[in-house]
Amino acid sequence: MEVKSITEQKSLLQTLAPGKRARLHRLLFEFGPGNGTLLFLPIDQGIEHGPRDFFPNPASKDPEYQFKLAAEAGYSAIACQIGMAEKYYPDYAGTVPLVLKVNGKTDVPPSDRALSTCNSSVEDAVRLGADAVGYTMYLGSPRQDDDLAQLRGVRQDCDRFGMPLIVWAYPRGEAIDKKGGAGSFYAIDYAARMAMEMGADVVKLNMPKINPETDKDAPAPYNEGGFSQEDAIAHCVESAGRSLVVLSGGSKVDDEQLLQQTRFVMQAGGSGVIYGRNVWQREWGEALEVIAQIKEIMLSSVSRVP
Amino acid sequence: MEVKSITEQKSLLQTLAPGKRARLHRLLFEFGPGNGTLLFLPIDQGIEHGPRDFFPNPASKDPEYQFKLAAEAGYSAIACQIGMAEKYYPDYAGTVPLVLKVNGKTDVPPSDRALSTCNSSVEDAVRLGADAVGYTMYLGSPRQDDDLAQLRGVRQDCDRFGMPLIVWAYPRGEAIDKKGGAGSFYAIDYAARMAMEMGADVVKLNMPKINPETDKDAPAPYNEGGFSQEDAIAHCVESAGRSLVVLSGGSKVDDEQLLQQTRFVMQAGGSGVIYGRNVWQREWGEALEVIAQIKEIMLSSVSRVP
Amino acid sequence: MEVKSITEQKSLLQTLAPGKRARLHRLLFEFGPGNGTLLFLPIDQGIEHGPRDFFPNPASKDPEYQFKLAAEAGYSAIACQIGMAEKYYPDYAGTVPLVLKVNGKTDVPPSDRALSTCNSSVEDAVRLGADAVGYTMYLGSPRQDDDLAQLRGVRQDCDRFGMPLIVWAYPRGEAIDKKGGAGSFYAIDYAARMAMEMGADVVKLNMPKINPETDKDAPAPYNEGGFSQEDAIAHCVESAGRSLVVLSGGSKVDDEQLLQQTRFVMQAGGSGVIYGRNVWQREWGEALEVIAQIKEIMLSSVSRVP
Amino acid sequence: MEVKSITEQKSLLQTLAPGKRARLHRLLFEFGPGNGTLLFLPIDQGIEHGPRDFFPNPASKDPEYQFKLAAEAGYSAIACQIGMAEKYYPDYAGTVPLVLKVNGKTDVPPSDRALSTCNSSVEDAVRLGADAVGYTMYLGSPRQDDDLAQLRGVRQDCDRFGMPLIVWAYPRGEAIDKKGGAGSFYAIDYAARMAMEMGADVVKLNMPKINPETDKDAPAPYNEGGFSQEDAIAHCVESAGRSLVVLSGGSKVDDEQLLQQTRFVMQAGGSGVIYGRNVWQREWGEALEVIAQIKEIMLSSVSRVP
Amino acid sequence: MEVKSITEQKSLLQTLAPGKRARLHRLLFEFGPGNGTLLFLPIDQGIEHGPRDFFPNPASKDPEYQFKLAAEAGYSAIACQIGMAEKYYPDYAGTVPLVLKVNGKTDVPPSDRALSTCNSSVEDAVRLGADAVGYTMYLGSPRQDDDLAQLRGVRQDCDRFGMPLIVWAYPRGEAIDKKGGAGSFYAIDYAARMAMEMGADVVKLNMPKINPETDKDAPAPYNEGGFSQEDAIAHCVESAGRSLVVLSGGSKVDDEQLLQQTRFVMQAGGSGVIYGRNVWQREWGEALEVIAQIKEIMLSSVSRVP
Repeated sequence: MEVKSITEQKSLLQTLAPGKRARLHRLLFEFGPGNGTLLFLPIDQGIEHGPRDFFPNPASKDPEYQFKLAAEAGYSAIACQIGMAEKYYPDYAGTVPLVLKVNGKTDVPPSDRALSTCNSSVEDAVRLGADAVGYTMYLGSPRQDDDLAQLRGVRQDCDRFGMPLIVWAYPRGEAIDKKGGAGSFYAIDYAARMAMEMGADVVKLNMPKINPETDKDAPAPYNEGGFSQEDAIAHCVESAGRSLVVLSGGSKVDDEQLLQQTRFVMQAGGSGVIYGRNVWQREWGEALEVIAQIKEIMLSSVSRVP
Repeated sequence: MEVKSITEQKSLLQTLAPGKRARLHRLLFEFGPGNGTLLFLPIDQGIEHGPRDFFPNPASKDPEYQFKLAAEAGYSAIACQIGMAEKYYPDYAGTVPLVLKVNGKTDVPPSDRALSTCNSSVEDAVRLGADAVGYTMYLGSPRQDDDLAQLRGVRQDCDRFGMPLIVWAYPRGEAIDKKGGAGSFYAIDYAARMAMEMGADVVKLNMPKINPETDKDAPAPYNEGGFSQEDAIAHCVESAGRSLVVLSGGSKVDDEQLLQQTRFVMQAGGSGVIYGRNVWQREWGEALEVIAQIKEIMLSSVSRVP
Repeated sequence: MEVKSITEQKSLLQTLAPGKRARLHRLLFEFGPGNGTLLFLPIDQGIEHGPRDFFPNPASKDPEYQFKLAAEAGYSAIACQIGMAEKYYPDYAGTVPLVLKVNGKTDVPPSDRALSTCNSSVEDAVRLGADAVGYTMYLGSPRQDDDLAQLRGVRQDCDRFGMPLIVWAYPRGEAIDKKGGAGSFYAIDYAARMAMEMGADVVKLNMPKINPETDKDAPAPYNEGGFSQEDAIAHCVESAGRSLVVLSGGSKVDDEQLLQQTRFVMQAGGSGVIYGRNVWQREWGEALEVIAQIKEIMLSSVSRVP
Repeated sequence: MEVKSITEQKSLLQTLAPGKRARLHRLLFEFGPGNGTLLFLPIDQGIEHGPRDFFPNPASKDPEYQFKLAAEAGYSAIACQIGMAEKYYPDYAGTVPLVLKVNGKTDVPPSDRALSTCNSSVEDAVRLGADAVGYTMYLGSPRQDDDLAQLRGVRQDCDRFGMPLIVWAYPRGEAIDKKGGAGSFYAIDYAARMAMEMGADVVKLNMPKINPETDKDAPAPYNEGGFSQEDAIAHCVESAGRSLVVLSGGSKVDDEQLLQQTRFVMQAGGSGVIYGRNVWQREWGEALEVIAQIKEIMLSSVSRVP
Repeated sequence: MEVKSITEQKSLLQTLAPGKRARLHRLLFEFGPGNGTLLFLPIDQGIEHGPRDFFPNPASKDPEYQFKLAAEAGYSAIACQIGMAEKYYPDYAGTVPLVLKVNGKTDVPPSDRALSTCNSSVEDAVRLGADAVGYTMYLGSPRQDDDLAQLRGVRQDCDRFGMPLIVWAYPRGEAIDKKGGAGSFYAIDYAARMAMEMGADVVKLNMPKINPETDKDAPAPYNEGGFSQEDAIAHCVESAGRSLVVLSGGSKVDDEQLLQQTRFVMQAGGSGVIYGRNVWQREWGEALEVIAQIKEIMLSSVSRVP
């Protein structure tokens, strides 16, 4: 599999300060697939959507399920909020790295002016032995002024503590809805660049969707059509520049689609995937199985040097 | 009485820092029922509703009434705001533990965009010798951004000072009203999980109400029906994970209902109850009587190890 | 005159920290009537209403008038804002105590969302040798979130510096207007309790007005009628618990009414009065006369021990 | 010319802290007319209105024009914002005192909710060797809450650094427009008192205008008529109490009017004038001439002692 | 070419503190044209517009393109946001100076109330070895209160660290739209003065456009017509006083226009140009060519002394 991304020309780690380098090295080479790729298990749906996501697999309601899965299936890291990091992570410290998500919000109010407030800090992450922090940035929200100011604080603390910064880069809000929607190629391409410009070490993107009908509302050249799904992913990965890219899955899709998009992101020069419901909404055995298939793709696709 | 909750598999105290452990131990084993359960007396209605709640039992207007009741009837702790903690608690220091409620608001303006501002701090609680702080979080309020930021500060101070954090987890605001209401199973189940994710050591929940008519506006699977009141309580307790759960009573109900819901929450793996008006809107003797009945249920239901 | 209030069972000073105790002792026993009661002269109308209040007695426009009156007529303290405290109080330091009002606002914009911002600090009060600070809290304003946060800061500084806190507890805003109005028994009773809960050492209340027509919009039992003016005052004083209560006069009323309400508040267990326009909108001799009558009532009614 | 103002009974300087005293002494007795009066040259129109004010006299666009004028014509001080203070004042340090205006705003958006944000600090003023700071307070603006909080910070820094505080006291906003307007006697009288109450050492007022038509919307007694222009000025000066008063000119008026209002303010016990466009919208020679006439009035009217 | 601007009477550097002087000297005399002029390459379009600007020249999407261009074509400096400064600048440190743009925003939401939030700090700039910081000020935006407060902080840090401050002075928002628009002579002239007043060392302006139709909505004398494009540029440069002026290009225009406006700004006493898309939306060879033409004009027009 040939990979031509600009991120391959030069190792990300080379330009990083020692703290970030040591911690990212752990995620890329000492845990997970181990070949310089990233496989994250997110368990922040309890705050973002509420417990309703746990009904398809009742066992998943107990956070032990995800922690055990992350540790036993060999993930690069598990990503969660402060409450679970304090009450459940202690038992798994050393067996799987921790990404502390420092902001979050419920989905009860509408998201037309979305802002995700910090409920923990980079210092909390340091105290808990985390190897990275996660921050959700809402590209294009009418409250981007507050969002970017908050992100600045997190980024500066990351620089101060040598903590890698993973930006969940989500288009959101009433303005993006009028320009093709939060899932469009335009929106996600913009989000990828924005996250890089704001100082992300790793960018988490949703899968861009090509939809000729709504893409017409996006600015040129996105409204001109002619882009395939594969093109879109490749563009988005490139827009993130030297920031590593991981792709997320969203709500549960069929297995073939999941594996196909994993291949796409790796081919485009991305660094890995972060699948939540697609993994832990399955029973234990079934979950281990699909994880093995995902890892197989990641291991066979590329190998990066530190 | 068989209890299967996930909170029973492992003692909460085991993962806590020494300060939190010492203080919670006092609430769970040295005061109140003493068998690892929690019986709280709240007296914050004077700020949340005004003096109107004291008319049914005029004696209750003098804060001495509640302090004396908490001390003599053997409560785990009394929960109140800063003014009463400074002016009345000194006489009771040592005889009953104090939970300092650090935020509050009046009910004069409508609560469609509710936010409960901090009027005291964790440091105030430390200075006053409190054994825990209480924080009211309004799940799903349009002002959740301010709420969660404020809660972060309180939680971090709790971590810094080793002070247990009790979260009054109340769904509130115009958005939850459109999704089945603040008292629905959906809303309270979400609140329970949210409080745990935000770092609560103890979660205070209102009794979830099953109402087929309004539950239809909630997201799946809550809108599908088929849940009993008992189911709902069990789910909510489980959603709080390793955070202990105490159930509140709200406005005065009949005694049988009060005792029945006490049984439900203990059966579900909850840790106790926090009844205010249901207790102190009675004359002294009558109050002592109902407290004895509640304690009897708590003592006979479970026994937890530190 | 028999007084049964709960505040009489126990001296307020007993539970106070040394700084507060020393300063309140000065106000209660070394200045003013000197028998444990409080007689304040407020001169904050120039900011709250503008100079229009000075036209009835042109001499009152010069702040010297009020300072001289407070000193010569023997007040417990004079209450004013920072500008006058800095420019006029130096000449009177030692002859009459100072209460620094730390917040205020003009009445130019409507008060449907009233908030009174701090224009000075507790530290300013310490620097100027004040014996207490005054804070205006707007009970039930839609901006109570900002108000209570601001009050927290003032209260904490008071605790830090041992400075007594006097809360001007005023119902205000569009929400209270819909529930019977800012002057109703319901509103003022709530304000009294709220101020105590927020940590006031002294609460300043407006005279509650019984108005069957508008009281119908208040919550039960206030909407049920049957309360006399005297009842209302007694209830409000009691709602403030161990916080001392002083009653204010508002715009100028006739002398008999003024003296009658003075008697009512003292009988109810209140600690004194704070009359501004009712006093200094009179010429010098006439002002001294009415002050003498007020003091006579205060001296003959009660005597409190430190 | 007889002057009876309350400010004459006692020197302002007597109650001031040493730093304020030393700096105000410089403005009152060492520069400008030198007889205890104040003659200020303001050059903040470039920010408040934009360069349009410079077209009538193109030379005035170069800030050198105003600095040279202030130095050569012998002003008490020149008042400007941070940019000019940093880039032009260094050449004039020692030849004319500096008043640093610490806040300002453009007039592009409507001023119905006006707020003038600080763009520099008292510490900047200290660093630049200024002898006073200027602050624009918008009396009665719906954003008075933010305004007064900001002013508190400036006032406290002035107290800390011994820096005299000059308050530009301007009625402004939609609420004052409904009560007779920003230029009315009512509005300016209120502004004068407010500035004094907020701790101003010097108050800058616009000339109050008597307008029977619009004055009817003001509160009593302002709506009752019977006040002359001279009365209004005298009242406003008196409302400022011990704060010194300087009168401004606004947009260019005819010379006789300018000199007449100068006489009025001095007669009323005011301390001087601050004319901008009325002076520097003239060519050099003509400007010197009118300044000489103004100074003549100031010198002949009064003499104040330090 | 004769230049009469006020900025020529005196070198800017003479009044600057040592840190600013050393850094600006580097930009003016050690890099770029080297004759006291400024040639900047901006690459902030990825955040301000998104990746859509990179489609005309796909190579430009990789930030390496702009960094290499700036270094090899001999620019005074490259201007970018924190993300690129951290991930790409290290390889070019020493070969081309860095201007760190400290604020920015996406163009997804409408800009009627535009505010550009800081995503990095002057301290970040110091840490990265930058020689200046860039700040985007939105003249006349309804949120100018927040904007100017934020700018104050940046300006003060610049003074503290001796870091030159470049203000991107852009009229913006619903109010300026009603007064002739963001590109009008009135608006840009005001922006130039405002930036100088706020403490800019260098002001970046868009080319003012003369449009008789919309200029009628501007205040006098801008609405009176009779100004040529050349006049307008000259006025704007002069309004910036001793702050150096660089002109930007906006979206791609034809080459002759680009060179003509370069001549205009240099003739008017401006200090240089900052062209982004007009340069890097060309292939490598073509880009170098147009840069050479621009530099030729800058070198032949003026020569400034330090």
